[in-house]
Amino acid sequence: MAQIIATSPLAQPMPELGSVRGVRLQAMAAGIRYKGRTDLVLAEFIPGTTVAGVFTQSKCPGAPVDWCRAILPGGQARALVVNAGNANVFTGRAGRETCESTARAAAELAGCTPEQVYLASTGVIGEILPAERITKALPELHEALSETGWADAARGIMTTDTFPKAAVRTAMLGGVEVVIQGMAKGSGMIAPDMATMLGFVATDAALPAPVLQALLSAGVKKTFNCITVDSDTSTSDMVLLFATGAAGNAPLPTTSPATSPENAIDSPELADFRAALNDVLHTLALMVIRDGEGATKLMTISVSGAVSDASAWRVGMAIGNSPLVKTAIAGEDANWGRIVMAVGKCGEPADRDTLSVSIGGVCIARNGTVTDGYDETPVVAHMKGQEIDIAVDLGLGNGSARVWSCDLTHGYIDINGSYRS
Amino acid sequence: MAQIIATSPLAQPMPELGSVRGVRLQAMAAGIRYKGRTDLVLAEFIPGTTVAGVFTQSKCPGAPVDWCRAILPGGQARALVVNAGNANVFTGRAGRETCESTARAAAELAGCTPEQVYLASTGVIGEILPAERITKALPELHEALSETGWADAARGIMTTDTFPKAAVRTAMLGGVEVVIQGMAKGSGMIAPDMATMLGFVATDAALPAPVLQALLSAGVKKTFNCITVDSDTSTSDMVLLFATGAAGNAPLPTTSPATSPENAIDSPELADFRAALNDVLHTLALMVIRDGEGATKLMTISVSGAVSDASAWRVGMAIGNSPLVKTAIAGEDANWGRIVMAVGKCGEPADRDTLSVSIGGVCIARNGTVTDGYDETPVVAHMKGQEIDIAVDLGLGNGSARVWSCDLTHGYIDINGSYRS
Repeated sequence: MAQIIATSPLAQPMPELGSVRGVRLQAMAAGIRYKGRTDLVLAEFIPGTTVAGVFTQSKCPGAPVDWCRAILPGGQARALVVNAGNANVFTGRAGRETCESTARAAAELAGCTPEQVYLASTGVIGEILPAERITKALPELHEALSETGWADAARGIMTTDTFPKAAVRTAMLGGVEVVIQGMAKGSGMIAPDMATMLGFVATDAALPAPVLQALLSAGVKKTFNCITVDSDTSTSDMVLLFATGAAGNAPLPTTSPATSPENAIDSPELADFRAALNDVLHTLALMVIRDGEGATKLMTISVSGAVSDASAWRVGMAIGNSPLVKTAIAGEDANWGRIVMAVGKCGEPADRDTLSVSIGGVCIARNGTVTDGYDETPVVAHMKGQEIDIAVDLGLGNGSARVWSCDLTHGYIDINGSYRS
Repeated sequence: MAQIIATSPLAQPMPELGSVRGVRLQAMAAGIRYKGRTDLVLAEFIPGTTVAGVFTQSKCPGAPVDWCRAILPGGQARALVVNAGNANVFTGRAGRETCESTARAAAELAGCTPEQVYLASTGVIGEILPAERITKALPELHEALSETGWADAARGIMTTDTFPKAAVRTAMLGGVEVVIQGMAKGSGMIAPDMATMLGFVATDAALPAPVLQALLSAGVKKTFNCITVDSDTSTSDMVLLFATGAAGNAPLPTTSPATSPENAIDSPELADFRAALNDVLHTLALMVIRDGEGATKLMTISVSGAVSDASAWRVGMAIGNSPLVKTAIAGEDANWGRIVMAVGKCGEPADRDTLSVSIGGVCIARNGTVTDGYDETPVVAHMKGQEIDIAVDLGLGNGSARVWSCDLTHGYIDINGSYRS
């Protein structure tokens, strides 16, 4: 990166991070692409750690995405290696070989099989990632592993991010308190349909991999899959959730249908854990939007009255991805006509004459025309804030969704007109 | 508009326009929104003029779109009224009444029924369009109608356009030379899926409305429907094609199946006319991209090897709409990894390992990795030009498409962060 990017005005301070029993991690500067900053992260998990993951739906996924997807059915994780600056995408056989040798090297250090080593890469697409820069650095990194390495690790996975992203919650599970702590990176190329940018969450809870997967998939659907910076879904998106079991919670009653994977998202035994996990995922996802390239405002878009939740989600994303809506927000212009345009264009069932639009809680337009005696003053005041609320009711059914986006500013053009060079 | 926008660096000079026998038109300043410039255009067609049209697929169309769609089955046109500055969209009953009174006023002047008067509006969404500003101005405008009013009319329909857009061709039809002349406007909110921004084309050929419609629909599909500035499909898009019949060409053999509407796009009798019409549509569509808000470069994206033409079109549009591709082009960065990303994200069948990407005629990546010995030098030189050629072969089938887009620059942010205010 040639230029220095200022910290996002929407940045949030790093929360006080603790440790997650059973997880040790560390970051270091391996010189993969960046100079003078950390760019390689290793995490090690105790034996018995289960894992769940969701991945980009891109038809051109990176080699590490292929690798993780292939080993995920094993359900066991002992190590995670993440590098920033080179995404190892569209790198053919060389990319696959880099994954294999990285996993072998980490497996040797952790005392496990390569199929228990998860890999993630983020950065430029199409450049060969030299495996030896990683494999040479791993022994030193392994020596330095620490239960308190979380904050450094959150910094070590950043690319165009302007602040590190982490979140921590606790929950009661099987009679004991468990910790859920995670980190994420992402700023541009953010439109994680069915997956996300990189997100790594660990818990000391003991949960079988299929249950973990059910909880993660459901949580991601309402959090990471509901954010967009620029509509450009990455080739490298993934969220991994590791459960070490070190908290010693009572195992779930496996005979109970309530805790089968199919029912995990509803079971009362998991309610507290589920809420805390979803809160971690939600917090991390919103941090990605708060660090959206060039962002100065956070948009929350609530869609109701759609024919289905899926339809509401697509309407919300059409609004959140519209360059004209996003530039209007940047310009603090309550240009609700562009919201109408975005609803109209997205191909979902909509009827101009039952549509209503609110900004900042003020209903501006209803039933196909502007509200009688509409006074723009409070809306103009709302537009000057950092958090913009848009609500659209389609008046057709009970489908609803909430999505988050950011404005489109000169900062985005600055960052992306010169990122690679 | 608060600010003065400089003329696009991609602007083209107005061609030498002639007249189209059977068409008289004029523009005037009616003070609808702009001050000190023309913003109202009236055209009158001789009795017997046939008409074809295509309209936005938006679920929130403007009142004039509803009006035109309703009267199109009549197939006859005697007048066209276009205003700039107010789109008459999301204006409810008031919007419908403005259409009705405008059509009645124009019909009285032209001596026809209101159902033979076509209406188009472009500009801000959601503000009431005062009918009397138009109806009061129409008599003076009607007095001033002229066969040579084309250039003034092309200027009178502009909004954020930085140059007027017109094209003219001739063709042989039924033994005589006929003229096809048209104008268009559009600069932002351009992603005309199945329709376009405003485009008006007239010919002195005699052609039945159903044949005209078949030719227009087929032509628009490969021209206006293959351009995008910002992925934001307008609520007001339309292209109308009027045929006055004043050229006196021999009527088509109506008994011949070759000239039925179903076969119009293949019939040899129409080949020359069809080619000229498509050329007019293509020229106008590319002028819209050349005037894309903030554009400094014209991108031509050729997609081949897709499973179908429709799939190739969607891949091309995903590339042409990607903010990351568009900012890379603006930054003159041959960042082909972002093209791979756009192909991967768009949901169309694609296989990373059969995909190839070329820029400026240089094959950069093939079969899932960068080309052996790839030398970026000629590609870097190509990126500095004003016309950027991107070619993608998916390696799956015979589907192909060509689409056009422009780069995303600070100019777009400038224009759209303050357009309405």
